[in-house]
Amino acid sequence: MACCRNCFCCQCCCREGETRTPEELAVLGEIQDEEDEILPRKDYESLDYDRCINEPYVEVLEGMDNKKSSKYEVVRWMMVFVIGVTVGLVGLFVDFFVHLFTRIKFSVVGSSIEKCTDKGCLSLSLLELLSFNVIFVFIASLLVLIEPVAAGSGIPEIKSYLNGIKIPGIVRLRTFLCKAAGVLFSVSGGLFVGKEGPMIHSGAIVGAGLPQFQSISFKRIKFDFPYFRSDRDKRDFVSAGAAAGVAAAFGAPIGGTLFSLEEGSSFWNQALTWKVLFCSMSATFTLNFFRSGINFNKWGSFQLPGLLNFGEFKCPDGDKNCHLWTAVDLAFFVLMGVVGGLLGALFNCINKCLAKYRIRHIHPKAKFVRVLESLLVSMVTTVVIFGASILLGECRDLYSPAAHNSSLASSEDINSTIRQFFCSNRTYNDMATLFFNPQEAAIHQLFHQDSTFSPVTLSVFFLLYFLLACWTYGVSVPSGLFVPSLLCGAAFGRLVANILKVNMGLDIYSGTFALIGAAAFLGGVVRMTISLTVILIESTNEITYGLPIMITLMVAKWTGDFFNKGIYDIHIQLKGVPLLEWETEVEMDKLTASDIMEPNLTYVYPHTRVQSLVSILRTTVYHAFPVVTENRQNERDFMKGNILISNNIRFKKSSVMTRAGEQRRRCQSMKSYPSSELRNVCDEQSAVEEPTEEGEDMLQQMLERRHVPYPNLYPDQSPSDEWTMEERFRPLTFHGLILRSQLVNLLIRGVCYSENQSSASQPRLSYAEMTEDYPRYPDIHDLDLSLLNPRMIVDVTPYMNTSPYTVSPNTRISQVFNLFRTMGLRHLPVVNAVGEIVGIITRHNLTHEFLVTKLRQHYITI
Amino acid sequence: MACCRNCFCCQCCCREGETRTPEELAVLGEIQDEEDEILPRKDYESLDYDRCINEPYVEVLEGMDNKKSSKYEVVRWMMVFVIGVTVGLVGLFVDFFVHLFTRIKFSVVGSSIEKCTDKGCLSLSLLELLSFNVIFVFIASLLVLIEPVAAGSGIPEIKSYLNGIKIPGIVRLRTFLCKAAGVLFSVSGGLFVGKEGPMIHSGAIVGAGLPQFQSISFKRIKFDFPYFRSDRDKRDFVSAGAAAGVAAAFGAPIGGTLFSLEEGSSFWNQALTWKVLFCSMSATFTLNFFRSGINFNKWGSFQLPGLLNFGEFKCPDGDKNCHLWTAVDLAFFVLMGVVGGLLGALFNCINKCLAKYRIRHIHPKAKFVRVLESLLVSMVTTVVIFGASILLGECRDLYSPAAHNSSLASSEDINSTIRQFFCSNRTYNDMATLFFNPQEAAIHQLFHQDSTFSPVTLSVFFLLYFLLACWTYGVSVPSGLFVPSLLCGAAFGRLVANILKVNMGLDIYSGTFALIGAAAFLGGVVRMTISLTVILIESTNEITYGLPIMITLMVAKWTGDFFNKGIYDIHIQLKGVPLLEWETEVEMDKLTASDIMEPNLTYVYPHTRVQSLVSILRTTVYHAFPVVTENRQNERDFMKGNILISNNIRFKKSSVMTRAGEQRRRCQSMKSYPSSELRNVCDEQSAVEEPTEEGEDMLQQMLERRHVPYPNLYPDQSPSDEWTMEERFRPLTFHGLILRSQLVNLLIRGVCYSENQSSASQPRLSYAEMTEDYPRYPDIHDLDLSLLNPRMIVDVTPYMNTSPYTVSPNTRISQVFNLFRTMGLRHLPVVNAVGEIVGIITRHNLTHEFLVTKLRQHYITI
Repeated sequence: MACCRNCFCCQCCCREGETRTPEELAVLGEIQDEEDEILPRKDYESLDYDRCINEPYVEVLEGMDNKKSSKYEVVRWMMVFVIGVTVGLVGLFVDFFVHLFTRIKFSVVGSSIEKCTDKGCLSLSLLELLSFNVIFVFIASLLVLIEPVAAGSGIPEIKSYLNGIKIPGIVRLRTFLCKAAGVLFSVSGGLFVGKEGPMIHSGAIVGAGLPQFQSISFKRIKFDFPYFRSDRDKRDFVSAGAAAGVAAAFGAPIGGTLFSLEEGSSFWNQALTWKVLFCSMSATFTLNFFRSGINFNKWGSFQLPGLLNFGEFKCPDGDKNCHLWTAVDLAFFVLMGVVGGLLGALFNCINKCLAKYRIRHIHPKAKFVRVLESLLVSMVTTVVIFGASILLGECRDLYSPAAHNSSLASSEDINSTIRQFFCSNRTYNDMATLFFNPQEAAIHQLFHQDSTFSPVTLSVFFLLYFLLACWTYGVSVPSGLFVPSLLCGAAFGRLVANILKVNMGLDIYSGTFALIGAAAFLGGVVRMTISLTVILIESTNEITYGLPIMITLMVAKWTGDFFNKGIYDIHIQLKGVPLLEWETEVEMDKLTASDIMEPNLTYVYPHTRVQSLVSILRTTVYHAFPVVTENRQNERDFMKGNILISNNIRFKKSSVMTRAGEQRRRCQSMKSYPSSELRNVCDEQSAVEEPTEEGEDMLQQMLERRHVPYPNLYPDQSPSDEWTMEERFRPLTFHGLILRSQLVNLLIRGVCYSENQSSASQPRLSYAEMTEDYPRYPDIHDLDLSLLNPRMIVDVTPYMNTSPYTVSPNTRISQVFNLFRTMGLRHLPVVNAVGEIVGIITRHNLTHEFLVTKLRQHYITI
Repeated sequence: MACCRNCFCCQCCCREGETRTPEELAVLGEIQDEEDEILPRKDYESLDYDRCINEPYVEVLEGMDNKKSSKYEVVRWMMVFVIGVTVGLVGLFVDFFVHLFTRIKFSVVGSSIEKCTDKGCLSLSLLELLSFNVIFVFIASLLVLIEPVAAGSGIPEIKSYLNGIKIPGIVRLRTFLCKAAGVLFSVSGGLFVGKEGPMIHSGAIVGAGLPQFQSISFKRIKFDFPYFRSDRDKRDFVSAGAAAGVAAAFGAPIGGTLFSLEEGSSFWNQALTWKVLFCSMSATFTLNFFRSGINFNKWGSFQLPGLLNFGEFKCPDGDKNCHLWTAVDLAFFVLMGVVGGLLGALFNCINKCLAKYRIRHIHPKAKFVRVLESLLVSMVTTVVIFGASILLGECRDLYSPAAHNSSLASSEDINSTIRQFFCSNRTYNDMATLFFNPQEAAIHQLFHQDSTFSPVTLSVFFLLYFLLACWTYGVSVPSGLFVPSLLCGAAFGRLVANILKVNMGLDIYSGTFALIGAAAFLGGVVRMTISLTVILIESTNEITYGLPIMITLMVAKWTGDFFNKGIYDIHIQLKGVPLLEWETEVEMDKLTASDIMEPNLTYVYPHTRVQSLVSILRTTVYHAFPVVTENRQNERDFMKGNILISNNIRFKKSSVMTRAGEQRRRCQSMKSYPSSELRNVCDEQSAVEEPTEEGEDMLQQMLERRHVPYPNLYPDQSPSDEWTMEERFRPLTFHGLILRSQLVNLLIRGVCYSENQSSASQPRLSYAEMTEDYPRYPDIHDLDLSLLNPRMIVDVTPYMNTSPYTVSPNTRISQVFNLFRTMGLRHLPVVNAVGEIVGIITRHNLTHEFLVTKLRQHYITI
């Protein structure tokens, strides 16, 4: 089994670590077609962070003054506060019940074991534990059946959302309920999962949902406050909610803010960041307020930090020679970072293989198979916990000689969670102490227990935890990864500390090593940087750990990145989400916008007949259409108009790229391209005819649009007998962009005028009418065609976005990428020097995979 | 004096708080022309964060592979590390000497006072103190004379730099030396100044200077490593350096990173942020390493936090009822925030008036007058310190009954800095304790001294400190503002705590109130938000203070913003720096790009004669020129070419804006405009003539350019007899942007070809040759014209930026602003739907003042 796993894994790793450069590949003429390489899917919709500036919006703008805008600002602040408080309460709810269930479980089973130690009825205790765990996990699993996107940690999904991708159902109320309740049971069920990831997801849903003042699941929740119903506002609130989730989970408001910045990117918006920080603070302190009140009955004080905190690291009061860490330790930390990175990469690798296996063999089967898998995991975990505690634990002295001087308060806390199973007084079972406690308590043990754990125990614990946690992540229950990784890493760190302290006799502080080990492994698995550093610093509440944590994380990330991606990115990739990275590689700058854009455009005219619009909408899947006017004369006038400026002709010809020219160039280059498939696409387009005569009624022709004008839409019908390439790629002057949802809306609301009237007679829609159906606009296929007069004409100009950002065809990829990602765009038209649209760039044209393919083509053609 | 100040101030405040909306002003027909309103000056140059993509750059790009780019990445990491360490060492240097000088001073004077208490020779002690202080301040002042930009805190300058404005001399080595040495003496000289601002400035200079591998001051420092010599890279390193400065000053690496993000804005660049954080960490820990080593002889431990830290806030160990703060206290914190905001606004208001007075009356005079002012401030401060300590101090019990239980270590530390002047044993002089200590020690006293300060002492201390600090900030010595503000605020907070504790009998923790008071006042003065919150949290090393600090700062900022801007923004404004705010007000979206752009363009053709280029460069001050081809036919062809599409004509006409049309519209609206001055500009342009005949040799004409083709350049010469408006604003197809520095470089290096050769014969420059002279490119006026053949032709196309970001004329201001600020642009061409350039937007078109003026015009014309 292990062997098989290893070789399986090795294969994954190798593929991942592919070091051949595109140049080499080009030379080899090799087209990578790994069957299991998952390319970004095209069916994810993008969010649009940019505003659509059209006439209805301008009307709203004209009515806007400073008073009104500050009113909205106040509402925004109130909303983020409410979101923060709600997320805090959700955290409280989850935490309370997890504690309650876990306490009940462990006290029942614990006392049963103590009784049975003498009587020898341990199998009964095991059965008790099994039944508890299996029932809890079963409930969690059922909840995920109701809403499948509630499975897993939710961080990949939130990361995708903040990156600008709509994943269906990800921010719905039902998901929230399943996730929050599910994680409660999966954690209580003793699985090796954390509640932090799901907390972040829950927070994000709260952020997305509350400011909408309506619910789709519960139709009756509907207030008349539509001001935040846009992708832009929603994404801002989701950032705040996710940050609040982190803040509540780790008691790390700054870390939460940075998390949402790191994942959410977009430009650094001070006002937004300030709100996000406030939201995080609200969440943290709501949680602290209630926990202080409930747990200590000290209402009004804010003593307890977040759900997960690492306790206080400090030297015993009297000991002047004790240091938390010294410069010498840094060298060990770096080594631990390397090891952590390696272990993390291994973890990710195994988990990736498992996830692929699940996608291929489990997901296609009936849903209850997933439930069975969860139950299997639960049972194996339970048996392992039980068996290891009983069989492999060592009895260690409770008061080890090194610890005689530690301050009272903390050691009291720590000793309350030790387990004495089968051990005599004044000793304790170290394995049971780690396994038979909530994970947070086990982390505290590893960080602060002055008594030692035996190296064997730590090794076994690490190994078991590593394998089981790896298996568990991806099972269909809500499951975070932070706490298991921390615990696993802490065991590793403690092991290192043991070796250094006992075997090499160094004077070190074990807790620090456990912390660094935890950071190294977690860093190796998730590969987060800034936010993780800050989260860990805040969780320890000790700023002096900043440097070692940061260095460790950095080394772990670099080491891990050598082999594969972070676990969240792996799962995003497996889902086929077209995530945009931080920035493109420098090499990509060899490409320009014209290399990656989509030159086959489906466009509308400023004034179009209803029948044409319907046909366009029904036969294409694009979400936006450029509004253009055709410009047949341009091509010819072009030379004529500039014939005098003889010196500049060479320049202008090369400067003004046309779509036809570009397409011809691409065909040329594709012919020299090895793949026969690609060649075929082009051959049919090579015949160039003379432009058609000019006398025909162009207006009529343009308004009615023949019905097969969308090239490559029906690959089985060859369009070449109707359209020449010159015709297909004729010059089009660009005037604006109109969205599919807007067009459907116009059709549904009957916004059109008849041929014999002026376009001024067309009814006008207000901003509220344009956005009423957000976020789920009606589909064109739901439209009742009998209500429409196909001969009517729609004037789209008042509703199109007249001023989207555009780029020129020879803009470099890094610039295109920065603009697209930073501004949160959805469609980026490529416009040449004379104002003609030559292509359009969407998210799919900027994914890493697409760029790599294009770069390869680039190397082949040059 | 106070009365005069008050009324003076009142006037300032009122003007600042002007609440008339532009609409009202428009109705009143009132043109605000306050003579003392300082508008952004046009002589500041912008930095360019965008890359210029031209052929030399593409060549570099083609030679770039992943190996090379990762090599640069490694060098970048090394550089940020070196920057961090260097900044840490600078901090260490400053701190060490400040401590040394201060200790010597206070021990000499202190012992003299103790001796004189009996003998009555106090005037001798005063004289000693005076001579110490005056000498130190004199040295600091002299250093500032050498390099005037070293005065003040430097934060306004760094903020401007990160915002994208080049301020001459601000990141030079000489400035660094004067600043670092100067702040040392000004702090040692007992002035009420901090060393934090100058530390940040020093850090920024280190960041700007080190990666250049050369120095302009010391010509012999010159290594051959030119890779980071661009505005883009320099700005990144300056961010890192400034962050390291904050980190070293406050021991707040995360706060430093956020500071540089908050001020530097630009887009959220993960890789950069990660480097910045690493740089901050390096600085903090370098400082800690050496301070731990030097002060405690514990080399290798990292025990001491940053230069300024607030000590540990904690309840006495045994006291279970003690809370640092409770929910009830929050209400007081909000009130303190309001008061802090008010006080801060008052502080800023007084300081603004003083600064204006200085600009008008002191700066024009001889430089030694400034030195005299510094000495005057120094003397007054010394006398006040001395007088207040002797005359106004109260003797308080050392062990107040409330403090019996405090933990030993901290109270030992605290009590080492109390002063007993004239007080019997077991009591101490509270005023002297605050005044006769380094400021950091005084802050510690206010935060942690369990014994009480008398309310009278606190009030007097606050008042004196407030006035003197206000007077001092702006005097020509290097002077930070953080520590004085904190101290002032802490006194205020402690006063509130005294009142609540003694007079109202509430059970509160005084230290927290002092801290919150400090935060409130500091927030009221500087109005920073996110970074300040984090800096304060990190300085206290107590995450639980997050919420109260944040709420206090928020309230203080809102309150203060009601009256005036933050102190740094005020000083930036007084300097006339065209700073770009975070975002524009919503109301500005009523304007479009065409409303604010500059339509009078000075342009070059792709191929231009040397004589034309020289004339353009010598007669204009623009830093970039659009490269265009003229397009006279376009205007007429336009209608003809589209005549068939009758339905779309109305649309197209309105959609395609021309410069001539725009100019005509502006003139129309200006005529209805009240100001006669503005009217005159337009009248001369109103005559519209027929376009000239076409037979003339256009090539010749274009190559040679008549010599007065730059409209409005010589306002005294009426250009209308030569150029009609239609001619001036003829359609120009936009092809790219070329910078002044590039053109001068081309001329100097003789890049041109003669008429009878092809342009291919023109010599080609490499990237290194293009950027060799960074950052100080030669001026056109230094060019020896006799070396040039004026009839030669320069082909600028290989060197122009062919793909700058552009916007359409009807883009809304918020979009333009976001693009400009986020991408760090310098020139943003406005291009209409047919590819003609209609205007250009620079930083000056986006300053708040300019937008407000334009909005006012907008209201008038509609």
